[in-house]
Amino acid sequence: MRQAQHTLTIATRGKGLVEFTAEVRQWVRTQGIADGLLTIFCRHTSASLLIQENADPDVQTDIANYFEDIAPETRDYVHDTEGPDDMPAHIRAALTGVQLSIPVSGGKPVLSTWQGIYLFEHRRAPHHREVVLHLIGE
Amino acid sequence: MRQAQHTLTIATRGKGLVEFTAEVRQWVRTQGIADGLLTIFCRHTSASLLIQENADPDVQTDIANYFEDIAPETRDYVHDTEGPDDMPAHIRAALTGVQLSIPVSGGKPVLSTWQGIYLFEHRRAPHHREVVLHLIGE
Amino acid sequence: MRQAQHTLTIATRGKGLVEFTAEVRQWVRTQGIADGLLTIFCRHTSASLLIQENADPDVQTDIANYFEDIAPETRDYVHDTEGPDDMPAHIRAALTGVQLSIPVSGGKPVLSTWQGIYLFEHRRAPHHREVVLHLIGE
Repeated sequence: MRQAQHTLTIATRGKGLVEFTAEVRQWVRTQGIADGLLTIFCRHTSASLLIQENADPDVQTDIANYFEDIAPETRDYVHDTEGPDDMPAHIRAALTGVQLSIPVSGGKPVLSTWQGIYLFEHRRAPHHREVVLHLIGE
Repeated sequence: MRQAQHTLTIATRGKGLVEFTAEVRQWVRTQGIADGLLTIFCRHTSASLLIQENADPDVQTDIANYFEDIAPETRDYVHDTEGPDDMPAHIRAALTGVQLSIPVSGGKPVLSTWQGIYLFEHRRAPHHREVVLHLIGE
Repeated sequence: MRQAQHTLTIATRGKGLVEFTAEVRQWVRTQGIADGLLTIFCRHTSASLLIQENADPDVQTDIANYFEDIAPETRDYVHDTEGPDDMPAHIRAALTGVQLSIPVSGGKPVLSTWQGIYLFEHRRAPHHREVVLHLIGE
């Protein structure tokens, strides 16, 4: 049994979903671990992780619109010193989560055909987001 | 240290929660791993996983009703080519998640008495849903 | 490769977030495992786990207020025999989740500076909540 760890940096262009399935797949493929467990952890409280359909980009638009409405900037927040988009960002991250674990088989995460791995940026400004990958197996 | 992996297929009858705690417990019990970590991964973007109370079935009704209201079919979605229940299904899956990890002790997941493991079907039509189980430990 | 498991009991004072990052860090530090994967599992269906900003306590207030509004006690629930705060508690737990996994490096969870680990109590009354920690690595 072995393990490996790696940090990806993902550039975002403000609010929205950024797919990074290919980067994850490539890292997993090169670790020499055929079967195991992959964990992805986002080191931020105003960005989160999602597995979602990557076939139709409209799905990403609808998801982004939905979270704009369900945790709006216009709500009256106590915490407002970091801008109107900061507290909604924390709430959206709480609703979607900052960690994913995916079994690995034959050197690949067991995602189905249409499942993509996304970083969900919740701030208006572009950011560089750190995502830690951990793989254990043999 | 050892690991094991298995795919369960869960039949759903359209929208609603399907408990599969017994199937998970049985598989874990027969792997010869007393202590470790169990991960459950749903290979779909319109169904998700939940740990919820399995004492009173009314809880499942209220949860299903709640998600009908919070991510309604009647909302105006851009992605609507797969039916009015498809985009709400993606949103409900984003809000609840497709993966669970549970420590295992003495050959059993450390669930409490009333915690059950559920597949949450978000589409109207019955489906067969694939859930991958991964267990690592000794 | 080794593993360790431990149960923390967290006292809550009714609804709200209780940070227990320090207890988690201390337990991880004393297991003699430098690199690995930490999993935290909440054995309840009316309390949940969150990673959130621990810099400004107002963030916790806004999060608590938000979940009061989004899954209110005043909604009409079928399951109402355990008090008006019980069914909203189950829904809030479904929205936030009962499990977190965090890679460990150099004997520490790879949390960023402002990420804290919280138990989110959803019931009005104070409770003692059991949280199981599992660590695997070497």
